[in-house]
Amino acid sequence: MKNLNSSLPGSVVAAQGFLASGVFCDLKRLGTGKGSDKGRKPDLALIVSEVPCTVAGLFTTNQVCAAPVKVCRPRVAAGVAQAVVVNSGNANACTGRRGLADAEAMAACAAGHLHLPPEHVLVASTGRIGVPLPMENVREGIRRAAGRLGNAPEHAAEAAEAILTSDTHPKEVAVEFKVKGRRVRLGGMAKGAGMIQPGMSATGGRPAAGWHATMLAFLTTDAVIAAEPLQAALERAVARSFNRITVDGDMSTNDTVLLLANGLAGNPTLTPRRSPRAGANSGFEAFQAALDFVCLELARMIVRDGEGVTRLVTIRVSGAQTDADAEWAALAVANSPLVKTSWCGGDPNWGRIMAALGYSRARVVEEQVDLGYSPPGGRRVLWSLRRGQPTRATFKSLCAAVAAKEFDLHIRLNLGKGVAIRYAADLTEAYVDFNKGDVSNPAALGG
Amino acid sequence: MKNLNSSLPGSVVAAQGFLASGVFCDLKRLGTGKGSDKGRKPDLALIVSEVPCTVAGLFTTNQVCAAPVKVCRPRVAAGVAQAVVVNSGNANACTGRRGLADAEAMAACAAGHLHLPPEHVLVASTGRIGVPLPMENVREGIRRAAGRLGNAPEHAAEAAEAILTSDTHPKEVAVEFKVKGRRVRLGGMAKGAGMIQPGMSATGGRPAAGWHATMLAFLTTDAVIAAEPLQAALERAVARSFNRITVDGDMSTNDTVLLLANGLAGNPTLTPRRSPRAGANSGFEAFQAALDFVCLELARMIVRDGEGVTRLVTIRVSGAQTDADAEWAALAVANSPLVKTSWCGGDPNWGRIMAALGYSRARVVEEQVDLGYSPPGGRRVLWSLRRGQPTRATFKSLCAAVAAKEFDLHIRLNLGKGVAIRYAADLTEAYVDFNKGDVSNPAALGG
Repeated sequence: MKNLNSSLPGSVVAAQGFLASGVFCDLKRLGTGKGSDKGRKPDLALIVSEVPCTVAGLFTTNQVCAAPVKVCRPRVAAGVAQAVVVNSGNANACTGRRGLADAEAMAACAAGHLHLPPEHVLVASTGRIGVPLPMENVREGIRRAAGRLGNAPEHAAEAAEAILTSDTHPKEVAVEFKVKGRRVRLGGMAKGAGMIQPGMSATGGRPAAGWHATMLAFLTTDAVIAAEPLQAALERAVARSFNRITVDGDMSTNDTVLLLANGLAGNPTLTPRRSPRAGANSGFEAFQAALDFVCLELARMIVRDGEGVTRLVTIRVSGAQTDADAEWAALAVANSPLVKTSWCGGDPNWGRIMAALGYSRARVVEEQVDLGYSPPGGRRVLWSLRRGQPTRATFKSLCAAVAAKEFDLHIRLNLGKGVAIRYAADLTEAYVDFNKGDVSNPAALGG
Repeated sequence: MKNLNSSLPGSVVAAQGFLASGVFCDLKRLGTGKGSDKGRKPDLALIVSEVPCTVAGLFTTNQVCAAPVKVCRPRVAAGVAQAVVVNSGNANACTGRRGLADAEAMAACAAGHLHLPPEHVLVASTGRIGVPLPMENVREGIRRAAGRLGNAPEHAAEAAEAILTSDTHPKEVAVEFKVKGRRVRLGGMAKGAGMIQPGMSATGGRPAAGWHATMLAFLTTDAVIAAEPLQAALERAVARSFNRITVDGDMSTNDTVLLLANGLAGNPTLTPRRSPRAGANSGFEAFQAALDFVCLELARMIVRDGEGVTRLVTIRVSGAQTDADAEWAALAVANSPLVKTSWCGGDPNWGRIMAALGYSRARVVEEQVDLGYSPPGGRRVLWSLRRGQPTRATFKSLCAAVAAKEFDLHIRLNLGKGVAIRYAADLTEAYVDFNKGDVSNPAALGG
């Protein structure tokens, strides 16, 4: 991407004026949390701005939503925040009134240590559902996290580590771009792994086609931008990234994306152009492009690191009667257990893809369907089916196309102009093994 | 069930005047099929009535549907048939015009050997998608099957074996009941295993909530009943049985249920009662009860013998705002990979069930939901959640409830009077292993 330096370290502390930390406070094992962090995975993170920020956020549309989501929605709508406190190991979901009080207390505790108004602190949780937060540990964790805040990449890395659950590695990105000569930075961290098919909105109203992780993403920027355009930019970016991924089709009770903008870059205020004349190179567009890039990078990292995942398949549907039809077609293929297991085996099984298209809610005419494969983002497509009939592509060449760890699946319905993209994963024995749980160890059973 | 002898042998030949056979003609390996049947699994079945029958049928609502489905729909609508020819190993789906001609030729070939009008012969296929039928083998198989027809239970067993794909054992049932003193019999055989979530209708129009197997079921009866009430009775029975099962949520291109009634029992013609006064013990109601029983028995056998399945879970949703809501709630839970893997592990994980309910299309209020377990059909429910909160049931007792190979999951939404039942399966490593295929052996890759 031109005008975009995408190899910046530091993720959430890359932008000016942001601090972060991560600590271990034993939220899974319900121990004391007062011991040393050494050798124990951190499970509580803090992200703090030196000055108040405008804020944007999107949350799960699951009707059963976690206490931190309920606490954050009105705070994000108010448009101002300065810190985020996040824990892993416990989702604080399905925990009733106590859960709500705990989420508020978690924010208030952080606010106390940081000398902020409690309503300027946001909160997020991920982990087991239905177990009350061990608040003594949480409070001790927040106290220590507040004492360790810093703006070095290691501080961001600590925080990025602390929000993980079944993820195998942290997910961090940061970029830098120019707005009227001023250097603006945007960075973020995310976690995913299982229960991943986000369908997030600001209010809880369902997005058009997403109906089914806990995925969390925290983004920070030093751009000068008001809350309203910030929210619009985040909604656009999430619609093209996090809301387009699926690992297992299960939508979490806790999905949350938060974006804080502290304005320390000192750029002219970013506003969306009102007319096409305003020019394509406005600062807002550069910001949107940077945000789109960061969200898509993090979203794809989540799919790649999904539970048991060995393949990232980008499903590109075109020629659907409507965009909604294209989304339904892509979603049916992305979530078909038979298609997903065929990817796991490196099997270019088009019959299963055709069956999934046929039972999707999209209009499909068998004799019109083209199916093919390309490397990620590739324009040269190896077509497997044309107008419903096998091409002369050899089985060997098709196997080679789907043997890759990442490939694009092109589906042309040839019925209209509807398009959709979905980032999907395969289904492996490792996913089943991980999620079947261990009933001999109730504390290990995830939410 | 009173007035119902359900331990009859012979399935499709239990009723008077029906004959069956099964032969091996090497449809998978595309060999010659002319060798001995010994040691090789049969793959072609014939079911024939000595006299013409009224007929009823339901077919997949997948928009991509197999050639035999296209051939059968108008023949079933015409109301008369006398034979069914079925092959396994090849689905004759996504095979274009050639596939349609092959399905017609398959019926015509059987008609020739049986001296019947071709339009009185129905046809069904299951197996790999997208490969033309090896017609030489099919013709040879039909010739030999026509020469082996018989009405002993062994003949039915041969046919029931021939229609299997990844099933581990044949599925057969037969019952006998009395109508005004006359003995009436009804029997059937079925196959399932993978790509199982039927949503069948007579015309291809979608049923209300089923949107996502190849499952095949063939039913025969000697009852005297016209085609129209026969179709009505079959639609009711399928709505309560086959259309309520899910193994993997994938709906096949080939799902077919056929019911032939040859009238040889000589009972007074069965007609649905027009008014409540006609009495509850009419012959039609006895017939419907028998048909409901046979379809549900076969449907549950399909789930138990699904690919890799170790558990049959009957999901009973009540108190939904509408029946449609109840269906959506049941379906979301039945198809959630995280819920299904928890069953595989014998883990009574209610958080995953709540998350699935929350993202379903049904209205759900967290604080209203009751969840519990009972033995199959049991009335004493061990409640795990009441009004969204964990009960005092111990983890050990809940684990014991879901350790059973078959149990009922009771979900009360407490929002209205909508109810639904769904027969679901767990998701195991064996399912993934089976379906990931073996690309070193293209012929073994299933459809």
